[in-house]
Amino acid sequence: MIDTLIQKIKEKNAPVVVGLDPTLKFVPEMIKKENFEEYGETLLGAAEAIWLFNKEIIDATYDLIPAVKPQIAMYEQFGLPGLEVFQRTVDYCKEKGLVVIGDIKRGDIGSTSEAYAVGHIGKVQIGNTSIAAFDEDFVTVNPYLGTDGVKPFVDVCKKEKKGIFVLVKTSNPSSGEFQDQKVDGKPLYELVAEKVVEWGKDCMGSTYSNVGCVIGATYPEQGKTLRKLMKNTYILVPGYGAQGGTAKDLKDYFNEDGLGAIVNSSRGIIAAYQNEKYRNFGEEHFAEASRKAVEDMIADIRSVL
Amino acid sequence: MIDTLIQKIKEKNAPVVVGLDPTLKFVPEMIKKENFEEYGETLLGAAEAIWLFNKEIIDATYDLIPAVKPQIAMYEQFGLPGLEVFQRTVDYCKEKGLVVIGDIKRGDIGSTSEAYAVGHIGKVQIGNTSIAAFDEDFVTVNPYLGTDGVKPFVDVCKKEKKGIFVLVKTSNPSSGEFQDQKVDGKPLYELVAEKVVEWGKDCMGSTYSNVGCVIGATYPEQGKTLRKLMKNTYILVPGYGAQGGTAKDLKDYFNEDGLGAIVNSSRGIIAAYQNEKYRNFGEEHFAEASRKAVEDMIADIRSVL
Repeated sequence: MIDTLIQKIKEKNAPVVVGLDPTLKFVPEMIKKENFEEYGETLLGAAEAIWLFNKEIIDATYDLIPAVKPQIAMYEQFGLPGLEVFQRTVDYCKEKGLVVIGDIKRGDIGSTSEAYAVGHIGKVQIGNTSIAAFDEDFVTVNPYLGTDGVKPFVDVCKKEKKGIFVLVKTSNPSSGEFQDQKVDGKPLYELVAEKVVEWGKDCMGSTYSNVGCVIGATYPEQGKTLRKLMKNTYILVPGYGAQGGTAKDLKDYFNEDGLGAIVNSSRGIIAAYQNEKYRNFGEEHFAEASRKAVEDMIADIRSVL
Repeated sequence: MIDTLIQKIKEKNAPVVVGLDPTLKFVPEMIKKENFEEYGETLLGAAEAIWLFNKEIIDATYDLIPAVKPQIAMYEQFGLPGLEVFQRTVDYCKEKGLVVIGDIKRGDIGSTSEAYAVGHIGKVQIGNTSIAAFDEDFVTVNPYLGTDGVKPFVDVCKKEKKGIFVLVKTSNPSSGEFQDQKVDGKPLYELVAEKVVEWGKDCMGSTYSNVGCVIGATYPEQGKTLRKLMKNTYILVPGYGAQGGTAKDLKDYFNEDGLGAIVNSSRGIIAAYQNEKYRNFGEEHFAEASRKAVEDMIADIRSVL
């Protein structure tokens, strides 16, 4: 799957991913009004509003980008109707030719991680039938439980030609609390990085591994160091834009081949119309504002490569 | 919520929780056959089979136990029909007076953790209406992202009088890979434990905090040390039974008041009828086998208190 992702990144000349992390405060009033009138102020009403919001943004941007990253929490908060819209969003993005990175940050003991892995990127066995449930292309994985919590995901990647991105150094302000702690003089995230490389070795694409990692744009020094430690590992980079990461910070996340990283923006794209810079589009043209924000982001990142 | 849990533990004189982690290989053939005939070998067929399996076990054991711990991965692997049965299981257990610990091991950056928290133990705001989606009583939380990934759960606990259990030292074989790494001479899990105590301080019940922790039964030495470090923290203890933990190992997880820990068994209870010890019940009496296994587990744990 990493080769498919790289091919699409090259085709679009755009190492970016749009984070489909909708909250109701990003959804234009007219869409909320329409759906609340039809379904009430219910989980279903919220979920359907988010679906329409997503669909317009996908339609307005899919030709520019290689991939999307729906954050499942933003759907899960609306219970079953929310998760149904997560599924619908995944399916629709795949129809549009996009690679779908399910930002699920799952991770558990072996038998449980296996259930997450088959449910999200593999197939579950039911009698003599095997069925894909959510069927994303990649998912994000939390490594806190160690190898036997990650290995079931790697096994499913190999079997189903899918991929994962393992959290190494996250973009949030307190990520250093545990991740930066020094173990024999080295930060914990480097130990995790070493394991990611090890896990990825028997799950290689042509140059890069199907086992990638997550390193926040908000920690460029660490990104630079980690890039060198894990040269065949693709880096999914959250934290650009709304969280404070800039293109200048991102240069060192890439290898000399111009590959090796894919940069995510969520709020900066999907809520662009609420940003001063794109306010002239007006609420009713929110999707066009998102398209312009994607174009600007791509130009910004190309400028440092 | 911790006070409610403690009250129920005292009423039943049973510091145990039944892990509702069904996989199809635990479900008796007759139930699978019936549901596959009705719904086909589909996600729905699997989910409905699991629902009937759960319901019989709940009906056969609810009077003996204070709480259940459904592991969401086992439902999520069956996609939306699976998650619908997760919801139905949570609702049914609450109707039966059980405390429900959603074993979801979520954790993300602040805004995302907030979405998980409102979706699982809080209420999501939709227009002027606030609605509980999954509505468990407790959830488990992964601490890898640090304070700002956990704090939104704590805030929702305070607001909604709910609780969480944060992973400190997990029960799986490779849990030591990162969790046991020494930071200034102390294992990382102790650092996490110190943070758990800190997070729990402004979210106290009468004696214990609503912010509990997870420590596997398979690491009794660590359990003993951590018990002393976090005396007002309730410990959720997985790993008893099928994973290898014994009652003798568990004594030190409890405080002198006989409280402070609640021990989970999943496979050992729900798949008891497949165990040599309970095979005489026969497949059709699987729920009675589970009841007997619960009685035996309670007696076993009482024997060391």
